[in-house]
Amino acid sequence: MKPLDVVAIGNALVDVLSHAQDSFLEGHRIPKGSMSLIDATMAEKLYATMGPAVQISGGSAANSIAGIASLGGKAGFIGKVSNDQLGDIFRHDITSLGVEFDTKSSRGGKPTGRCLVFVTPDAQRTMQTFLGSAGDVSPDDIDPDFIKRAQVTYLEGYLWDTPEAKKAYVKAAEIAHNAHRKTALTLSDKFCVDRHRETFVELVHGHIDILFANENEIIALYQARNFDEAVEAVRGKCDIAVLTRSEKGAVVVTPKDTVSVKAHPVRKVVDTTGAGDLFAAGFLFGLTHGKSHAECGRIAAICAAEVISHVGARPEQSLWALLGMKNSK
Amino acid sequence: MKPLDVVAIGNALVDVLSHAQDSFLEGHRIPKGSMSLIDATMAEKLYATMGPAVQISGGSAANSIAGIASLGGKAGFIGKVSNDQLGDIFRHDITSLGVEFDTKSSRGGKPTGRCLVFVTPDAQRTMQTFLGSAGDVSPDDIDPDFIKRAQVTYLEGYLWDTPEAKKAYVKAAEIAHNAHRKTALTLSDKFCVDRHRETFVELVHGHIDILFANENEIIALYQARNFDEAVEAVRGKCDIAVLTRSEKGAVVVTPKDTVSVKAHPVRKVVDTTGAGDLFAAGFLFGLTHGKSHAECGRIAAICAAEVISHVGARPEQSLWALLGMKNSK
Repeated sequence: MKPLDVVAIGNALVDVLSHAQDSFLEGHRIPKGSMSLIDATMAEKLYATMGPAVQISGGSAANSIAGIASLGGKAGFIGKVSNDQLGDIFRHDITSLGVEFDTKSSRGGKPTGRCLVFVTPDAQRTMQTFLGSAGDVSPDDIDPDFIKRAQVTYLEGYLWDTPEAKKAYVKAAEIAHNAHRKTALTLSDKFCVDRHRETFVELVHGHIDILFANENEIIALYQARNFDEAVEAVRGKCDIAVLTRSEKGAVVVTPKDTVSVKAHPVRKVVDTTGAGDLFAAGFLFGLTHGKSHAECGRIAAICAAEVISHVGARPEQSLWALLGMKNSK
Repeated sequence: MKPLDVVAIGNALVDVLSHAQDSFLEGHRIPKGSMSLIDATMAEKLYATMGPAVQISGGSAANSIAGIASLGGKAGFIGKVSNDQLGDIFRHDITSLGVEFDTKSSRGGKPTGRCLVFVTPDAQRTMQTFLGSAGDVSPDDIDPDFIKRAQVTYLEGYLWDTPEAKKAYVKAAEIAHNAHRKTALTLSDKFCVDRHRETFVELVHGHIDILFANENEIIALYQARNFDEAVEAVRGKCDIAVLTRSEKGAVVVTPKDTVSVKAHPVRKVVDTTGAGDLFAAGFLFGLTHGKSHAECGRIAAICAAEVISHVGARPEQSLWALLGMKNSK
């Protein structure tokens, strides 16, 4: 069995990205910077009012996996598209990067999911997601051999919104741990943490080795008063907690240590969609290639900086080339 | 009947844009800078070998119409999508700009057409087009009242590849002229001119008031030895010939006059897809708003400069705002 660095389980989505004014979000009562789930009717209604858009494959964990592949890592993905044109686009884009993606498409039911992304003039992104077939990931989609091949199995918190997907993830985590592999999770979104706080705490403390969260998410998870309190709350609950703070960089928290990571400079922040996803990509790539936590953080910061310098959440440049890693692939 | 500035008839396509190396084109024996028509099988084969892509509504005349709408012009479009997801994307994007687009979608037959666009490191674009339903525009799609409402009816030369679409255009041109309206054509592509030289000459001399062509296309049309010879060949054959020469600017040729237009400076040329389309948009917007030929050329050059400064053939900025035209809308 060919070994893999990371297998991710996540929502298979196509992003529909559009520039929008703050007043557009206010008019639709959508909190800026959030991700909300919407149904097909709302998706249609909202799409009808949004401006011209660009379609790019997305999905949080899928973006991370694309990043890992772009870094030269060996990656796999589990997620559910439908047998429609958007599903073809998602499958093409992820496999064209060399990612193994063998989850069967669903047929004749819900269409492939999409995420309406509104990029405001401050480069923030606000997301309204119609899950479609993406929400239908089930334990049947978890191939034990696929999980066992990966050093790390990585999940996005967004998947915690659908019951069958939760079961799928717990199944995958158990397979991984029985095979002496690692598991990783991103909390994804503050609102997602608020929806699932108790079960997220159980998940993190019971099943997760490597946790990714931004400042707001980790504070929300522990209902801490501030970031420092949240750092101490998570310390020791999993092997590594990687906590990002936008332009303030990140900290890597282990039971005995705290490593600070600087943000990588960006000429102009164009669209923050995918910043966290690509940070996780860089970190996991480093970790599965034997790098120190400080070096993992450095790679992560470079990947995040690349993706926020253009529209869309998938890397436009070869991240491998960007790191100047010519000799050790 | 609400008057319109421009109604365009063209291929309704979704662009699938990807970065590619020159070696990719060479390996597939695709001439750089060209547009070729490919069938469904070839489209699938080529798509399978291309890298991750971005999907953006395209189509030459449709891009021009999007530009005119972005300038604040009143515009309409005739073109054929299918009732599938790509068709929904095309329809959404063009109507969200305020363009009237009422051509019925085809059902159950060919899928919506797409144009695989390969952007090489020199920012040139090479296009492989699977027409799909776009090629099924027919005289039945031409609503005489729609044509009569427009000051100018505009066609892309690419449409000349399908017999029913040719009939549709001749029908539209006759309706326009009987209503004392103008007609315009872009020659689209040197290879397209080579395929249709004789009928293009007939079309231009018999039905066209305003002709758009780049240097290579106009030389090919008249099999001229050089640009100056081509300028004299076209002079007087139609009211206005607008001949573009990339960074050398453009010339506007009328029976008695030649007006030179400078190219607008661009910080960095990222992707030339849509340069000609947006030049035509700016020129036609100016013309339908009573501007001089020199001023039309100036607006055209600004629009072309905007679209080549980013990936994709549709304007990302409000062209209206870019022109600083705040008081005269």
